Amino acid sequence: MRQILEQNLNIKKTKWPDFFRCINEELVILEDNLRHKLPTKSSLLKEIVSYIFNAGGKRLRPATCFLVAKGTGGITEKHMVLSELTELIHTASLIHDDIIDSAKLRRGRETISNLWNDKISVITGDFLFAQASVRLGQLENTDIVKIYAKVLSDLCNGEIEQYSLLFNTNISWDDYINKSKTKTASLFAACSKSAAILNNVDSLSIKMAHEYGNSLGIAFQIVDDILDFTGSSAELGKEAGSDLKQGIITAPALFAINSADNRANQLKTIIENKFNKASDDFKKAIQLIHELGGCEKAKLLALEYSEKSKESLSFIKDNEIKSYLSQAADFVAERIS
Amino acid sequence: MRQILEQNLNIKKTKWPDFFRCINEELVILEDNLRHKLPTKSSLLKEIVSYIFNAGGKRLRPATCFLVAKGTGGITEKHMVLSELTELIHTASLIHDDIIDSAKLRRGRETISNLWNDKISVITGDFLFAQASVRLGQLENTDIVKIYAKVLSDLCNGEIEQYSLLFNTNISWDDYINKSKTKTASLFAACSKSAAILNNVDSLSIKMAHEYGNSLGIAFQIVDDILDFTGSSAELGKEAGSDLKQGIITAPALFAINSADNRANQLKTIIENKFNKASDDFKKAIQLIHELGGCEKAKLLALEYSEKSKESLSFIKDNEIKSYLSQAADFVAERIS
Repeated sequence: MRQILEQNLNIKKTKWPDFFRCINEELVILEDNLRHKLPTKSSLLKEIVSYIFNAGGKRLRPATCFLVAKGTGGITEKHMVLSELTELIHTASLIHDDIIDSAKLRRGRETISNLWNDKISVITGDFLFAQASVRLGQLENTDIVKIYAKVLSDLCNGEIEQYSLLFNTNISWDDYINKSKTKTASLFAACSKSAAILNNVDSLSIKMAHEYGNSLGIAFQIVDDILDFTGSSAELGKEAGSDLKQGIITAPALFAINSADNRANQLKTIIENKFNKASDDFKKAIQLIHELGGCEKAKLLALEYSEKSKESLSFIKDNEIKSYLSQAADFVAERIS
Repeated sequence: MRQILEQNLNIKKTKWPDFFRCINEELVILEDNLRHKLPTKSSLLKEIVSYIFNAGGKRLRPATCFLVAKGTGGITEKHMVLSELTELIHTASLIHDDIIDSAKLRRGRETISNLWNDKISVITGDFLFAQASVRLGQLENTDIVKIYAKVLSDLCNGEIEQYSLLFNTNISWDDYINKSKTKTASLFAACSKSAAILNNVDSLSIKMAHEYGNSLGIAFQIVDDILDFTGSSAELGKEAGSDLKQGIITAPALFAINSADNRANQLKTIIENKFNKASDDFKKAIQLIHELGGCEKAKLLALEYSEKSKESLSFIKDNEIKSYLSQAADFVAERIS
């Protein structure tokens, strides 16, 4: 079982955390549902769906959902549905994002857009969103419908905001954190909160579950943004520095741009010129971000949000599950791929 | 008011039907909501949304929703939300379809893909789907969530099926009608049925409301398919014959292909060769479809479905409203643009 999970969850290189082990049965069922049980008569779509989910992924959102469920009364059939719809929304949004960002690689494999084309990507994303909606209906809970409608809205707003702020070196920390909330944390918060709602816990616990997911999601996004600068292409499964190259200003660049050092202005100018002036402008920008300590400072910010997420765990009474959720927060802040 | 509606609803050239007049107030509110009240901070998205909804459209799905509501107890605030979410889903699916079909024109204006690009089209479609989800949540009705989740799933399956059957002259009538149901009738049926559900009518009435929308939607799709052959580019607001050119086999072509006449085989061969053999192959195909009576036969089929939709109207007790719903069915079968 461990071997299957290691292989499935794409975390071979890191220590296999205990928190995955305590929900391995549910993760294996989820994996099977995603890979083999999405209903379509189209052989093309079957092939694409299998391609997508065989690429792995850490399944951190479903894991969050399962752990919160376990800590608030137990994992029910509805939590299985909730975790699946959460991963479907996540995957659909990645597929559409890859069209928008003209991405060539994702999780170490060619994107759907690159391997097939943009048209197929649009249909595939829409199909996964539709399948998520079907599962949302199965939950028969209008509060959760509202929560996930807000997530879809947030995901779009995050993507639009990112698009409208490309190469804008004047973006504020509020802009950055807000975009991280809408693009990433919103879905973490939704699955954590909804897992608690499905177990009929009190409203304060629901609020805390939301807070846990929200802080965890922001930490996750910041680490993702650091990895864009520090990871190798092989580790990342996509080109290193690809966000900055497109003009997306994330935490490491933002810390560097806002540092008191004179080189900050040089970095700003290079980015504002869209790396057009000299052929090694892009390399120079990466170098300046490292020299100005952008990644180290961003790491501290990620740890701050990871700690904040742990502080929200008072709603979990079971100490073992609480420690797993705490471990998940550490894993998010410390992951190297 | 009439002038605003004529302008908004893009039906200047046809007789302005009474059934639109009896719901004009609601249609004007809907129009205002669509054009001016979709929440986004992005100025780009505001511009695009305004561009889309200012292009008009007949708003037949909202009209169906309003009329069924009026005939089953009255139009409530929730029906306003329902009609809006229905038009949002319809519009979002058109925008994504235009990417998939590489369409240049829609409703006489350049498509979003053509005027901006495919990336912007993906985001805009996702934004409208997300806004539809938010409204679905506002209805607080899990039955309607399930109905619309099925619609989203149907829309995708219809599009995928269409894509997989391009240039396939062996498609059956079942394939064609099924694709028309999933691509078009599903949303008509959903808004008609849901309008009845919101007025708490009995289950037989809900079933009939579904049947009405389903038959109306199939009639609508068949007429759309006829117009692709008979309309001028100016009337259609897109290139004439554009469906066939892409390899989409619709009712007029299907009747022609399946006729006992020898020329049917010639037509099949031309289509199977993807109009590649001679430069005027495409013109020849259009000519053969006309000669073999494809459009006339398709017209009779559309009328059959239009009549079938009227036969489902026993659930409407008010004779005036019933006559308007009947008129809507005639309008759909007889429209010329």
